[in-house]
Amino acid sequence: MAKSKYEYVKKFERNDSLLPNTWLVIRVDGRGFHKFSDKHGFVKPNDQKALELMNKCAENVMNDFHDIVLAYGQSDEYSFVLKKECSLYDRRETKIVSTTVSLFTSNYVFNWNKYFPDKELLYPPSFDGRVVQYPDDNNLRDYLSWRQTDCHINNLYNTCFWALVHSGKTETEAENVLRGTVSSEKNELLYSQFNINYNKLPEMYRKGSVIIRQEAEINTINQKGIDVTRKKNIVTVSHEDIIRDEFWKKNNSKLGLKF
Amino acid sequence: MAKSKYEYVKKFERNDSLLPNTWLVIRVDGRGFHKFSDKHGFVKPNDQKALELMNKCAENVMNDFHDIVLAYGQSDEYSFVLKKECSLYDRRETKIVSTTVSLFTSNYVFNWNKYFPDKELLYPPSFDGRVVQYPDDNNLRDYLSWRQTDCHINNLYNTCFWALVHSGKTETEAENVLRGTVSSEKNELLYSQFNINYNKLPEMYRKGSVIIRQEAEINTINQKGIDVTRKKNIVTVSHEDIIRDEFWKKNNSKLGLKF
Amino acid sequence: MAKSKYEYVKKFERNDSLLPNTWLVIRVDGRGFHKFSDKHGFVKPNDQKALELMNKCAENVMNDFHDIVLAYGQSDEYSFVLKKECSLYDRRETKIVSTTVSLFTSNYVFNWNKYFPDKELLYPPSFDGRVVQYPDDNNLRDYLSWRQTDCHINNLYNTCFWALVHSGKTETEAENVLRGTVSSEKNELLYSQFNINYNKLPEMYRKGSVIIRQEAEINTINQKGIDVTRKKNIVTVSHEDIIRDEFWKKNNSKLGLKF
Amino acid sequence: MAKSKYEYVKKFERNDSLLPNTWLVIRVDGRGFHKFSDKHGFVKPNDQKALELMNKCAENVMNDFHDIVLAYGQSDEYSFVLKKECSLYDRRETKIVSTTVSLFTSNYVFNWNKYFPDKELLYPPSFDGRVVQYPDDNNLRDYLSWRQTDCHINNLYNTCFWALVHSGKTETEAENVLRGTVSSEKNELLYSQFNINYNKLPEMYRKGSVIIRQEAEINTINQKGIDVTRKKNIVTVSHEDIIRDEFWKKNNSKLGLKF
Repeated sequence: MAKSKYEYVKKFERNDSLLPNTWLVIRVDGRGFHKFSDKHGFVKPNDQKALELMNKCAENVMNDFHDIVLAYGQSDEYSFVLKKECSLYDRRETKIVSTTVSLFTSNYVFNWNKYFPDKELLYPPSFDGRVVQYPDDNNLRDYLSWRQTDCHINNLYNTCFWALVHSGKTETEAENVLRGTVSSEKNELLYSQFNINYNKLPEMYRKGSVIIRQEAEINTINQKGIDVTRKKNIVTVSHEDIIRDEFWKKNNSKLGLKF
Repeated sequence: MAKSKYEYVKKFERNDSLLPNTWLVIRVDGRGFHKFSDKHGFVKPNDQKALELMNKCAENVMNDFHDIVLAYGQSDEYSFVLKKECSLYDRRETKIVSTTVSLFTSNYVFNWNKYFPDKELLYPPSFDGRVVQYPDDNNLRDYLSWRQTDCHINNLYNTCFWALVHSGKTETEAENVLRGTVSSEKNELLYSQFNINYNKLPEMYRKGSVIIRQEAEINTINQKGIDVTRKKNIVTVSHEDIIRDEFWKKNNSKLGLKF
Repeated sequence: MAKSKYEYVKKFERNDSLLPNTWLVIRVDGRGFHKFSDKHGFVKPNDQKALELMNKCAENVMNDFHDIVLAYGQSDEYSFVLKKECSLYDRRETKIVSTTVSLFTSNYVFNWNKYFPDKELLYPPSFDGRVVQYPDDNNLRDYLSWRQTDCHINNLYNTCFWALVHSGKTETEAENVLRGTVSSEKNELLYSQFNINYNKLPEMYRKGSVIIRQEAEINTINQKGIDVTRKKNIVTVSHEDIIRDEFWKKNNSKLGLKF
Repeated sequence: MAKSKYEYVKKFERNDSLLPNTWLVIRVDGRGFHKFSDKHGFVKPNDQKALELMNKCAENVMNDFHDIVLAYGQSDEYSFVLKKECSLYDRRETKIVSTTVSLFTSNYVFNWNKYFPDKELLYPPSFDGRVVQYPDDNNLRDYLSWRQTDCHINNLYNTCFWALVHSGKTETEAENVLRGTVSSEKNELLYSQFNINYNKLPEMYRKGSVIIRQEAEINTINQKGIDVTRKKNIVTVSHEDIIRDEFWKKNNSKLGLKF
């Protein structure tokens, strides 16, 4: 049983350490979530509980990996931003991405019942993951703008699409109505036909969810048994605009970005 | 909301396709499973139910990914062998590994209650994953021999260790007794002190679990409503020796190996 | 002058070791050789001296790197096959490819005068290089067949093209004549219009050049001053067919291939 | 002769594009230059002509690749800095490094006679190359500081070593004298024993060579046959300190750096 005789096979493992001093973005994506959301009767175009479950998973991932400074989620995807100096697992790509995806997935199944107490999970859902390196603060910010723009474009389309379908159109008819329309026409359609003011819809649907650590005051009892208030960084979900400057002006220094 | 303005950030994604015509081995490993098994009161040195849950997860991964021709598991790890011609996700490394790990994890949490109906899952477990490429059938077989040898060495050690601890020794005392002992001495210790014949212990503990597709006869009802027997390939768990030639002689052609 | 303060920059170097146990093929290609051959008045379609210079460079590269078991060249390119077990520079990709290309280039300029004693080298030529990994003997052989087929197709075309041009056609007219013709038509054109039997043209032009080490008897004087004959492996150029089985049957065992 | 039958082998080529928006540094290093400099009787510790030949090669590489904004050389090595936005060869690593090394090597052999008219080149020299990516301007500057510090440390040592050897010491004796000495002791040794003021030695030896494009006025004759003065960017060698701020203050904007 000479173990050493076989151990040479370890030499086939590749060193896949990522470049130092770059922002790392891990994006987790639902695998086959179109079918998954159908089977589980998710509300269309947005299922609030399903989005809150995604946020919960992301919060727990952030609580486990302290090098994640920001997470942004929409629909069935979540992006995690690891700070430039991150040395987690020696920056080994597959180690980082596989662990993150696993933790996210695990939380999704584990917490399902809390968000859908009356709905049985019919089969185990899964996610894929990827890592992208961004050398520059501007590249990182543009990445996040790209995802939030994607959220906006898809959500506006889906809101129209499902309004049409819920009003009696077939899916094909709804597609035909929307083909070639620009944003202003979609807004107009929602307002004139369905009396929906798109900008009044919940921000979580229109802008997705941003999670960063915010300082909060925590009431606790100290070692002497006395009530005290302590400041602590808590992962906090909001639904802000992360394309415009305002968010970044507020949070740059905290996140380690230079603009 | 010019999406195109930001889309350049996609160019930072790396093409990580693996080399064609090599065996791909994905190994999934429990993350922090020492603590996890303690917290959940796993029987030591082997918890039958926990191992069966691992096997269940691996079976479901194989049922989802048809390019996996063989899986081998022991302790809190599982290796999946994808055939050389596998073109799953264009052989993109992080896509393959992240999806596999996610599916494995999801099954673990999803099926927990079936294997531990009386034990609550206290927190979401996670796994990491890696991919190794093996150009040659012999390299692949040596990889599997390496893992099964590892299973044997660890299990023999752990069986002694826990026998000593269960008999009243501290963990440190048990370690001291075992330090420097060879296999024959450990076998002797089990037999003389604890009346345990190591070779009579369950094969799943001593050899781990091998999963391949085996042809099986399935009784079913055909379109005319008549009972028929059909042959079908079913993923099947066994606990065979995969170091010696016998297993390979039996299964080579099925697995696409040349020896 | 704290050196250590800056040495962290070495961490940005990537480990680019290639997979063990795969054939490595380095292909060196002339950069801008269309212009280079024009400026230096190379005979068209084939300049014997220029091809011999390429062969000389390849021989010297093989004499320097003993892990190269075979080289194949045609036109302004040369492919070098490193044996599977090659551990040159720990199989680091850029180290291997850069050194090989450098040595090839250096030999080209260094030996120019020997092949073109009456022709001044007008400016320094350059080459690029790449490495491809082949896990399987058949993949490697197919690679070489691909290059020799390329040689055949290009040479047949060029032989026709330049025969037409030398006979007074413009380059555009020659292209038009050849557009859409198959091999047999090109052979016929050469024979009927120019009385050229393509298969009688020099093998170096039609098949390119293959270099392997062949055992040869070397006459030398031993330490006692006596004439002796020693067997030695000498890099040897030939112009054989490497697509058909014959070459491989003769040389398989020597090259470490299994067919 | 079905070419397509074999063309699948191209699929084994890996896409090795480097990350966008990072500084790329290519370092070219002499291979076996200790022996090469001995065989060709280079003056020790510094051969002015050999260094000038290196500079000439680097200038020509810069004239060929316009994306190189700065080059730094010392001893038998040269580093080339490609600007962040460089899209040369789609940033493919082996293509970039192999071409650069080839061009450098070619120039070395091609120009040998101009620098050593009385010295025959005995055999073809070669160089290796590597690429390193630097995401940040500070990382890049630290890289260059690292190389210039290396130049200083080695040159001070070598100046002492060869002064001792030229004065009659064996190489081993010289090593023993210098073991454990710090910079100030080496300076003192040169001054007291050999009357050498280290800081008065040629800057090229002490600081290496920096090449950037400088605007120069070129006298030329225009299309009307009239003498005119035109401004043009010309690659220019100097021997400045590139560790201190001064050089960067002068050249930052030109080089595209932000400090």
